Amino acid sequence: MEAGGTKFLCAVGTGPDDLHEMVRILTTTPVETLGRALAFFERFRGRLRALGIGSFGPLDLDPASPAFGTVTTTPKPGWSGVPLLRIFQEALGIPVALDTDVNAAALGEGRWGAAQGLHTFIYVTVGTGIGGGAVIHGRRLRGLLHPEMGHLRIPRDRERDPFPGLCPYHGDCWEGLASGPAMAARWSQPPETWPPDHPGWALEAEYVALGLVNLILTLVPQRVILGGGVFRFPPLYGMVRRRVQERLGEYLWAPALAGDLEGYIVPPALGERSGLLGALALAMGVAEDT
Amino acid sequence: MEAGGTKFLCAVGTGPDDLHEMVRILTTTPVETLGRALAFFERFRGRLRALGIGSFGPLDLDPASPAFGTVTTTPKPGWSGVPLLRIFQEALGIPVALDTDVNAAALGEGRWGAAQGLHTFIYVTVGTGIGGGAVIHGRRLRGLLHPEMGHLRIPRDRERDPFPGLCPYHGDCWEGLASGPAMAARWSQPPETWPPDHPGWALEAEYVALGLVNLILTLVPQRVILGGGVFRFPPLYGMVRRRVQERLGEYLWAPALAGDLEGYIVPPALGERSGLLGALALAMGVAEDT
Repeated sequence: MEAGGTKFLCAVGTGPDDLHEMVRILTTTPVETLGRALAFFERFRGRLRALGIGSFGPLDLDPASPAFGTVTTTPKPGWSGVPLLRIFQEALGIPVALDTDVNAAALGEGRWGAAQGLHTFIYVTVGTGIGGGAVIHGRRLRGLLHPEMGHLRIPRDRERDPFPGLCPYHGDCWEGLASGPAMAARWSQPPETWPPDHPGWALEAEYVALGLVNLILTLVPQRVILGGGVFRFPPLYGMVRRRVQERLGEYLWAPALAGDLEGYIVPPALGERSGLLGALALAMGVAEDT
Repeated sequence: MEAGGTKFLCAVGTGPDDLHEMVRILTTTPVETLGRALAFFERFRGRLRALGIGSFGPLDLDPASPAFGTVTTTPKPGWSGVPLLRIFQEALGIPVALDTDVNAAALGEGRWGAAQGLHTFIYVTVGTGIGGGAVIHGRRLRGLLHPEMGHLRIPRDRERDPFPGLCPYHGDCWEGLASGPAMAARWSQPPETWPPDHPGWALEAEYVALGLVNLILTLVPQRVILGGGVFRFPPLYGMVRRRVQERLGEYLWAPALAGDLEGYIVPPALGERSGLLGALALAMGVAEDT
């Protein structure tokens, strides 16, 4: 199950070529949304081995915490404190694995997509918000908490871009400056309607690149999987790659970082299904463990 | 062995309470410096089980690379291309482990210092340069390369601070703005001579905090071990902690991040010996593996 802020996707299966019975549920109240999701999975009672959930966050993923498995400080009305993990564990009586949507998507891309055979890579999505997941040495990154890469601080030139940023917590953090809604608000026009020569694309490429450079210097991923709504304008990929290359300034040396970065910063191979297949990979992981 | 840019420290032993025969070698040419280090270790021939080297970098740490174990693009005259790992392996005939000085220091703090019992933490040093090492899920972080956290990009207010930065690659990256030499150059006076109310301390706290916030959001460490020359002014710790707390803006929720962060951002428990003991931990790791 992919538990997104606007929709939940539920499906049953064993892999990318066997993913069926897919349903799409609008995210409304927890009672209504989770009720419908549970009703879907209950149809398969006795035939499900495990459930994986890739969810919007923030989530409490510390097994030692009393709030383990719940949605925490989301501004989404009604969702703060919802014990996502326990609800499904108790109702379905099967092992349930929970992680962020982006950590799940990273896992899915590692198992079946653009990061197959790699041990250390990141998945970054730039759309309604900015989120990042990571697999490090073959395992989903989880430390004190799950990563919150969307809230990185990046440099900006206030003369060139006086827009204050949209993040309710930080104003001009990465997401505050470069999410789809930030782009739309800055130019009073959504990016879907921009012509290819709109000046917003160059600024967006610069901001996306600055965040990626920080992630690359910190996590040194073997590959960066980059997607999300703003990349429905595909030329943005080349623009971002060029800016990343400029900003790294030839400081890091590795064959993967030479040239145009076409093989280093790549779209998700699973397309729109990274999250859902990532949730399936979570389920398969917890099934193996139990 | 701690292979630093200004000095090499060599020692023999089995732990913090058994570390002896320590020598200090000034870092000059590779031939002279490595010759003296080798001569030291050869005195113990037949009695050494393994050698660990925590070195200045950048290093090629990819076992599949033809340049594995060498110093790569350092501006240090004569050191680029030096095959550090092979020289010691061949001369001593024992297992040798190599990593960055900061990854080694992180490992040392994990084994005997401020990060005992933790699985995911970082070690950051702010002095002549800025460097960061990380242990993630119990292993030293190594992806495509080792991390280069010192070169993160952070926001800055050019009106408040017009200093262009000192990094030869990036100008105003984290290290370019906040290393000890950058502080000295900006104010035409080294920080060792500053009074406690010098305005440079507040700016330094702000910059150190901005880099740490990015590392915290990305790696979500259970603890941050922070040291280096600029912390010879101990009040800087409290200033950095307050700025980190402000900049996180109550977005991340975890007990460790509540309050004044005194238990979260801490000095190295091993003091000046983090690097050398980290190298010993590297040696013990490679000895166990072979």
